[in-house]
Amino acid sequence: DENRQWLAEQAILALNVTSSPGAGKTTLLERTIRGLGADRPIAVIEGDQETLLDAERIRAAGARAVQVNTGAGCHLDADMVHRALHALNPEPQSVLFIENVGNLVCPALFDLGEHSKVVVISVTEGQDKPLKYPHMFAAAGLVLINKIDLIPYVNFDLETCFGYARSVNPGVEILPVSATSGDGVDAWYDWIRTESGVLANASYVPKTR
Amino acid sequence: DENRQWLAEQAILALNVTSSPGAGKTTLLERTIRGLGADRPIAVIEGDQETLLDAERIRAAGARAVQVNTGAGCHLDADMVHRALHALNPEPQSVLFIENVGNLVCPALFDLGEHSKVVVISVTEGQDKPLKYPHMFAAAGLVLINKIDLIPYVNFDLETCFGYARSVNPGVEILPVSATSGDGVDAWYDWIRTESGVLANASYVPKTR
Repeated sequence: DENRQWLAEQAILALNVTSSPGAGKTTLLERTIRGLGADRPIAVIEGDQETLLDAERIRAAGARAVQVNTGAGCHLDADMVHRALHALNPEPQSVLFIENVGNLVCPALFDLGEHSKVVVISVTEGQDKPLKYPHMFAAAGLVLINKIDLIPYVNFDLETCFGYARSVNPGVEILPVSATSGDGVDAWYDWIRTESGVLANASYVPKTR
Repeated sequence: DENRQWLAEQAILALNVTSSPGAGKTTLLERTIRGLGADRPIAVIEGDQETLLDAERIRAAGARAVQVNTGAGCHLDADMVHRALHALNPEPQSVLFIENVGNLVCPALFDLGEHSKVVVISVTEGQDKPLKYPHMFAAAGLVLINKIDLIPYVNFDLETCFGYARSVNPGVEILPVSATSGDGVDAWYDWIRTESGVLANASYVPKTR
């Protein structure tokens, strides 16, 4: 709640980005920084068990980043984000991406104070993931289906996956994208712009759990 | 320890198969049942948050299977496996696959009584996974690099991934395979035959933690 209140006071759009390992979160954020960074400041909190690799990639793409290593831990928690916010000090009206540890299970259960959870799945993982990891998909404000450039080479039907995702989260918005080819990313940027606008116009109401 | 002792008494080769969601564990087991099932009986304990989908796929491939749903839980534990063993009652000298919940973090920390952990990663996840999820790779007795048929379409270098995996687990065996095309699976079957032979010839020594 403290994180959420501070972020709302600064009109910072905080998005908790979750996925399986290797679904392409960091590649998506690199492209988003390059594509949307001229519009508005972007900062990133990077969660991983180990390594500083992702924060280095984000900085090379042109955004400020803080890496949080969770060691044996399987998700970021609100206190880690609180401390990272102090270190990062993102600008008012910026976009803050919180890239969670790659894990479709545990991060579903932890509220970091974000505006919304963005769940990324890749077409190489198979279309049944919303059914098998329903808690994560039920918690999502947006589902991005990534790596659509690989659809010709794998067994994945977009409409079937849409149906599975909506069976656990009826109203959820779903956008197919490719972080490597850039297909579909304009709709993702538009979603961010819309959510930023909603946030800027909203009066702050603390969320009850 | 109880699971391990019972499995050893029956000379059952129990392999705890872990991976990210969608790395291809179930597809690999389907192929393995068809390819190796004539050699020796195979049984499968299927772990997932929800759904019976995987157990149904395994039965259709010709092996006995029990599905364990973990609900909000992120991994199988030894007690779940103990109960599943009662339900499944695998034959002496069989191979038992324990397909864990798709998660590269939590299953690393839980001993189910298995002979060995087999970690499956797919080339679509990126070559840095051993560095970012070192606990899982350090716990592995075998690493299978799956979906090698997709290497032409992604940014993945096998030798680099071998190096990363061995940096966290120097002696680990690594086999590149494709569960869909069948490339490399004969080496995986040979590994299973060798481990079964080791088991059949070993006198049982309880593992100390």
